[in-house]
Amino acid sequence: MALYSAEFLGTVILILLGSGVVANVSLKKSKAEGGGWIVVTAAWGFAVAIAAYTTGWISGAHLNPALTIAFAVIGNLKWSLVPGYIIAQLLGAIVGASITYVTFKDHFRITEDADAKLGVFCTAPAIRNTVSNLITEAVGTAMLVLGILGINNGSNNVGALSALLAGILVWVIGLSLGGPTGYAINPARDLGPRIAHAILPIPGKRDSDWSYAFIPVIGPIIGGTIGALIYQFFTTLWV
Amino acid sequence: MALYSAEFLGTVILILLGSGVVANVSLKKSKAEGGGWIVVTAAWGFAVAIAAYTTGWISGAHLNPALTIAFAVIGNLKWSLVPGYIIAQLLGAIVGASITYVTFKDHFRITEDADAKLGVFCTAPAIRNTVSNLITEAVGTAMLVLGILGINNGSNNVGALSALLAGILVWVIGLSLGGPTGYAINPARDLGPRIAHAILPIPGKRDSDWSYAFIPVIGPIIGGTIGALIYQFFTTLWV
Amino acid sequence: MALYSAEFLGTVILILLGSGVVANVSLKKSKAEGGGWIVVTAAWGFAVAIAAYTTGWISGAHLNPALTIAFAVIGNLKWSLVPGYIIAQLLGAIVGASITYVTFKDHFRITEDADAKLGVFCTAPAIRNTVSNLITEAVGTAMLVLGILGINNGSNNVGALSALLAGILVWVIGLSLGGPTGYAINPARDLGPRIAHAILPIPGKRDSDWSYAFIPVIGPIIGGTIGALIYQFFTTLWV
Amino acid sequence: MALYSAEFLGTVILILLGSGVVANVSLKKSKAEGGGWIVVTAAWGFAVAIAAYTTGWISGAHLNPALTIAFAVIGNLKWSLVPGYIIAQLLGAIVGASITYVTFKDHFRITEDADAKLGVFCTAPAIRNTVSNLITEAVGTAMLVLGILGINNGSNNVGALSALLAGILVWVIGLSLGGPTGYAINPARDLGPRIAHAILPIPGKRDSDWSYAFIPVIGPIIGGTIGALIYQFFTTLWV
Repeated sequence: MALYSAEFLGTVILILLGSGVVANVSLKKSKAEGGGWIVVTAAWGFAVAIAAYTTGWISGAHLNPALTIAFAVIGNLKWSLVPGYIIAQLLGAIVGASITYVTFKDHFRITEDADAKLGVFCTAPAIRNTVSNLITEAVGTAMLVLGILGINNGSNNVGALSALLAGILVWVIGLSLGGPTGYAINPARDLGPRIAHAILPIPGKRDSDWSYAFIPVIGPIIGGTIGALIYQFFTTLWV
Repeated sequence: MALYSAEFLGTVILILLGSGVVANVSLKKSKAEGGGWIVVTAAWGFAVAIAAYTTGWISGAHLNPALTIAFAVIGNLKWSLVPGYIIAQLLGAIVGASITYVTFKDHFRITEDADAKLGVFCTAPAIRNTVSNLITEAVGTAMLVLGILGINNGSNNVGALSALLAGILVWVIGLSLGGPTGYAINPARDLGPRIAHAILPIPGKRDSDWSYAFIPVIGPIIGGTIGALIYQFFTTLWV
Repeated sequence: MALYSAEFLGTVILILLGSGVVANVSLKKSKAEGGGWIVVTAAWGFAVAIAAYTTGWISGAHLNPALTIAFAVIGNLKWSLVPGYIIAQLLGAIVGASITYVTFKDHFRITEDADAKLGVFCTAPAIRNTVSNLITEAVGTAMLVLGILGINNGSNNVGALSALLAGILVWVIGLSLGGPTGYAINPARDLGPRIAHAILPIPGKRDSDWSYAFIPVIGPIIGGTIGALIYQFFTTLWV
Repeated sequence: MALYSAEFLGTVILILLGSGVVANVSLKKSKAEGGGWIVVTAAWGFAVAIAAYTTGWISGAHLNPALTIAFAVIGNLKWSLVPGYIIAQLLGAIVGASITYVTFKDHFRITEDADAKLGVFCTAPAIRNTVSNLITEAVGTAMLVLGILGINNGSNNVGALSALLAGILVWVIGLSLGGPTGYAINPARDLGPRIAHAILPIPGKRDSDWSYAFIPVIGPIIGGTIGALIYQFFTTLWV
């Protein structure tokens, strides 16, 4: 229960701050409107760091089913914990996105662009193409899992820096690889808020773009697993 | 006296650098004019960090009545210290904002927009709505208190990183949740400079918008207490 | 083999994230299009940090032939390792740039500007002038090597901060000295992706500007060696 | 000799990277042209950090006569060292600015705005007013010295973070207080490059604005001393 509640709270924080920054820069009349890519990517990175400092010492702060599954594949996590982690992450993401909605309620009301409103919740590709979008999400998530494993390798002895470095890793993935798909790189980050978008009584909302929803689930799971295996392969060369 | 003087000095630093960045980006002819949301939010975050390194080892560097009250509610601070902390924080905020005024005096003179001049001192909502503005301020402050408690949990062992991480926490709250109300998330940060605005002989100033003043006082106190209680609830699950 | 494979993997990460950010801000329809200099330079800096955390504890994470050669010159690395390091770095850069191409494939297709497409892979000067461009690249790389040696001096005892500080060093070199040539400051970072550009079936690509290719190879090697010798000279004064 | 040579090298690095970023964002055709306030202020902050990591463990990395004098006033430095420190800092600043000139030579040639060319070397006020400009420089430098003393107080135990935090301090002073005068907050940073501007054969240069030159010398010395005395006063309350 401790593990699952920590994953839940951590994902609430991650998604509140993450969907928050998208609302902040894209909804009408927000003082941060038009803040730009540096604002969006820094906030997602710091959101990971803050969520990880708050809950990481309990559950490891995966906050991401792709990371949870990749860790199970390489034996860093028991498979029996995987379903509970994923459910907690999804619930946390739904709650986090709902708090964002309440925080920006009046701005949702006056924003007419229904795509922008959906964009606060979940990702959409710049150029819609199933194979390309899957590849982009997979590459980003492979980088995420590889980086997390690298940073936390015992030889680095990063100690309390670990969560901050995870945040910087997510920041740079956004800066460098985030433009084509909006970098979900996390099934819970995309699916949870998409469910919230479908449920919440948002004025003037569009459909929740369910036809795209499988890509930020499947892409990250494939990519995360590949990233973990690549890291495992290299570390066998290094011991 | 040591505690109160440290809270005073820390809040002077916080508000000098914090109201300073707003003056820097919004007053006419400043070289930083139009610097954007990343400039504003980074500076407020770093202001917290610098103030906390300078005074935190004496008094804990609350620099914020909402944090002080929330800490008292969960037993992290004696209630008898609360009034002195709050008075010191308010005085520090008044002094800090006054130094900002002196630093940018000529730019206040040539700026015609009276709202911009008031905005250097205190917050104003993007969309005026008592309930929504209270909620936004409460959510931001709940995130602040929850994050502070999480970062400083003994299991993290963050040591000298603590103040820097507090700064990053404030940075991301601004990046993600700051657009609707300008994120006071601190009664002293808003009320102290508002008093300074009322007192100082600023040329061409407007009224100090007292009808809004209770929101960045009440909202953060409610939100901060809720954040502390949420954290306390979760940690009971985790031990 | 461990050393060379670590240099290879580290350079893959560096170039994936580094050429990634250029693609992200300069190719058409990317959500990061027009992100600006702060985005480009932050990402290159963090790319260095993440690559170094992932592989630095094996091979030192040079990821740069100019650094490798400079270290050999001052006796920090055996000359017998130099050829293997450089080959691994070049191969890593080719692979990293190729992954970037796959990640942004649709955006390469719809971007018409062939210079922008080449710019994702390798650098080009703002004002073409062999002597000036060599000097700019040499100064930047001298700063890089001097900074790396300074940060990692035993007296600083930076521990796990080392890779993060290397990233900040690369960030500031870009911020401050990167505008005239696009700051290769690393022969592998420029030559590897240039080879990838020549090989890959990029639609509508131009030639790979081979007449410029020697400058970001020669300039950094000269500059890096000068930087190492300057540092060595000063430390003889300091002991 | 070790102390002075370290101050010299540190100031070369500081001014190369600091005047570099101004050249980078303000000279014609630089790829960083128009990079904005976040670019300028981040680079000056990181320049301090890198210079301090490279040389701080020898000489303390003052790199600033105002800091050196303030430290002497409160007994942190022997007065007999002050002249040598200041001479080394001035020489370093002249050399650093000259390397910047060489690095951006072609861009100086094609830039017509003589004020912009001077601005690479030294500061100029947004609104010229002797008293106001002196106050702004004094406030910024008081914040600098107070912050440095606070960060490095033994109770913080910041260790290897010290130089990074000094960089963040300079970053936030620029973000928050830098707009009215361009924040010299360091007599050597302004006077040294101004001398370089007067000496170097810069095409199409204007006069070196000597009538303003005393303000970024006197203002920081007064402000730095006040900052040190304020800190000393408060610490007497805290022991």
